[in-house]
Amino acid sequence: MNNETNVTWHDHQVSRSKREALNGHKGCVVWFTGLSASGKSTIANVLDHKLYEMGMHSMVLDGDNVRHSLNAGPGMLVDTHGETFAKRFGLGFSAIDREENIRRIGSVAQLFCQSGLIALTAFISPYRADRDRIRKNLEAGEFIEVFVDTPVEVCESRDPKGLYKKARAGEIKGFTGIDDPYEPPASPELVLKTEDKTAEMLADEVVAYLREKGILPA
Amino acid sequence: MNNETNVTWHDHQVSRSKREALNGHKGCVVWFTGLSASGKSTIANVLDHKLYEMGMHSMVLDGDNVRHSLNAGPGMLVDTHGETFAKRFGLGFSAIDREENIRRIGSVAQLFCQSGLIALTAFISPYRADRDRIRKNLEAGEFIEVFVDTPVEVCESRDPKGLYKKARAGEIKGFTGIDDPYEPPASPELVLKTEDKTAEMLADEVVAYLREKGILPA
Repeated sequence: MNNETNVTWHDHQVSRSKREALNGHKGCVVWFTGLSASGKSTIANVLDHKLYEMGMHSMVLDGDNVRHSLNAGPGMLVDTHGETFAKRFGLGFSAIDREENIRRIGSVAQLFCQSGLIALTAFISPYRADRDRIRKNLEAGEFIEVFVDTPVEVCESRDPKGLYKKARAGEIKGFTGIDDPYEPPASPELVLKTEDKTAEMLADEVVAYLREKGILPA
Repeated sequence: MNNETNVTWHDHQVSRSKREALNGHKGCVVWFTGLSASGKSTIANVLDHKLYEMGMHSMVLDGDNVRHSLNAGPGMLVDTHGETFAKRFGLGFSAIDREENIRRIGSVAQLFCQSGLIALTAFISPYRADRDRIRKNLEAGEFIEVFVDTPVEVCESRDPKGLYKKARAGEIKGFTGIDDPYEPPASPELVLKTEDKTAEMLADEVVAYLREKGILPA
């Protein structure tokens, strides 16, 4: 390749708006936050399916696809340089580990948004400062914070993985809503009240919001 | 939401093949590897543009969009918990930091691939073991290793950022190709010889490969 090619490569970059024109919708991050068992993942997956059926392009990021690779725990990383690698980079559940967990997810969600997709993230993400930092890194209107506002009593009565039971028994320490705080968003774009509603109905509320804001076509 | 909704949410997951049907092509990771100034980013961006013009969905991951967020250095991270956060999670250029840099990029490329996109990564990624670990995490045929095989003398003569000059002067230590090894792929899917070819011609070689393998429509 000659030098000229090297110098002018920026001309080859595909603009965000061109990508969005190809997709037929805008890119954004729909950030679900709420207690364990509040319904985040369920709603995100139902929404993902609805968007797919509308011909839109979306991607769910949740514990299933993030905790096993990008944000794997120390036990899942291979120590190729002695004991240091997994210990340093593997994520546990301490305050800084949780912060880094959410920081990385925010960065990845931003990359999906930049690629023109609708990124749907479903993590407890209990701390306001962590969520606000992600909002700040995105353009205005790109971060759609959806508070899945299910009371802790309801979450605890659902308890699909038996985690609340373990937390009450002291087998899990620092469990959000039990012995670690959940900080609700100060001004979320959407609040979903999940009691007496199906996941379908709740996903429709998000679709309506995305249409209203011009992220999805009318 | 009732318990039934919680139990059956997996039915809502959109299968990979459905996503690919919507896009009109398969998802994969095109992993460019080669020396600094070998042409990786240029070719990846030209390829990205070509894919866009074909109506395909792709995303370039390179230093520009990864080193400032996901894999930021210590100086770019905010210390919210004393001095520990940036120090522990910020990535420098030591052996384990480089390994973690590539590991995270591999995880993100895999997520893009799972979302049905063609992820184009442009990083030196000098160590064979790091690249092979990413290949192992992907399904057969999903990892397309493209060796951008430009001799170090040619890269050094281009030196668009003056990095080789600094490395020769000892101002940069551990520079790949000068005082740190580059391990070429043992059996890459593609080898691009960049001398006397334009980035357009080289990107076309990748397009031809993707067509041949059925990732792109014929």
